[in-house]
Amino acid sequence: MPNPTAAMLVIGDEILSGRTRDANLAHLAQEFTAAGIDLREARVVSDDEAAIVEAVNALRARYDVVVTSGGIGPTHDDITADSIARAFGVPIDVREDARALMEAHYAVTGREMNEARLRMARIPDGATLIVNAVSAAPGFTLENVHVMAGVPSVFRAMLAEVLPTLNGGKPLLSEQIRVEKAEGDIAGPLRQIAGEFADLSFGSYPFSENGVYGANIVIRGTDADRIGVAAARIADAIG
Amino acid sequence: MPNPTAAMLVIGDEILSGRTRDANLAHLAQEFTAAGIDLREARVVSDDEAAIVEAVNALRARYDVVVTSGGIGPTHDDITADSIARAFGVPIDVREDARALMEAHYAVTGREMNEARLRMARIPDGATLIVNAVSAAPGFTLENVHVMAGVPSVFRAMLAEVLPTLNGGKPLLSEQIRVEKAEGDIAGPLRQIAGEFADLSFGSYPFSENGVYGANIVIRGTDADRIGVAAARIADAIG
Repeated sequence: MPNPTAAMLVIGDEILSGRTRDANLAHLAQEFTAAGIDLREARVVSDDEAAIVEAVNALRARYDVVVTSGGIGPTHDDITADSIARAFGVPIDVREDARALMEAHYAVTGREMNEARLRMARIPDGATLIVNAVSAAPGFTLENVHVMAGVPSVFRAMLAEVLPTLNGGKPLLSEQIRVEKAEGDIAGPLRQIAGEFADLSFGSYPFSENGVYGANIVIRGTDADRIGVAAARIADAIG
Repeated sequence: MPNPTAAMLVIGDEILSGRTRDANLAHLAQEFTAAGIDLREARVVSDDEAAIVEAVNALRARYDVVVTSGGIGPTHDDITADSIARAFGVPIDVREDARALMEAHYAVTGREMNEARLRMARIPDGATLIVNAVSAAPGFTLENVHVMAGVPSVFRAMLAEVLPTLNGGKPLLSEQIRVEKAEGDIAGPLRQIAGEFADLSFGSYPFSENGVYGANIVIRGTDADRIGVAAARIADAIG
């Protein structure tokens, strides 16, 4: 059975203005690769309802799993939950179990529940909450869409909650071979070897360090033995 | 006149597998923000022709400017140029001026032109070359699509070539106000102020540092005076 497919949607003006550098895509990519879930696409859109709705609907129709990050805080620019409800065509309102989670947390931290914070208890109808140990406000899962916070520590905590609930596949394994030859000099034999191992994928990532030009050849696949055989072929032919 | 709109397409398995963390989106975002070009969307796809073609065609139809990064090297997994030609429905072949640029560079560096390197001189019909001072292989511009390398130093050099040819708009200015109050406590007044300044956008980015919770409020717009007035209002009401 092929591995499940996935996409990520990063939501936030701050990424597209260059103020903030996204850190969640790289983390999700590593976790999904280890879990055997093929991350096929990522999109970044601004805090704009129409843009979020369109992207979520495009991605959830196409991939088995969609993860969003960002836009679920208490301020006016946090419109993700409402946009997801709109995308699914379902109502959204304050949910008592989400409110209770937050009130219990605020009782400890001495904060007060107010109108702004209550917005974070707004959950689309039919969703399952994603609790997290870092902050009180939950994310949520609606069908195959998992809506998480943008703050990296909270995103990670939420992903750790969700990952065990997903059906993974075979972990994507990889082996890297460092070659201190220019990419243009190894491309010919590399292409030939890649053709011989159609069940594996071969990437070449050039580098230059202290005047040394080279490339890291990365072999990816789900069969460790085959990767080992291909790595030996590359070491023979190129290394 | 509204600012021109833009999108970025990042091409590469290595981003989606978590091996490499993209650095080019943040750089492009900062440069476009300064140039008055509104970066509205970014997508990341793998080294897959169908995925590249679909994304390029969706983005070029919708935005004034599209920038791609990645997949224009000499190895078998570098399929961006051919995919762009396919997206535009134009032929692609080795172009003599691109080949000449590369041969002149190789004459200095002592490398040889071979079949793999010659692939980097393949340019879709009708494109303009994007030369760069870092590496010999050029990028290219076809209509509103600018095809650049993924290696960050080369991407930056190519973007520096292209930026002066683009019609920018009013630079997007911003001012940041650090508030050492929890986001949930400032969200109410912030929403009200955001409503009073409909020509500006207000973002709130929470932080916690050494047990201090707070938020950076970022005001964005094209009119420095208005941003200053709004910043004073926020300092009065929240700061």
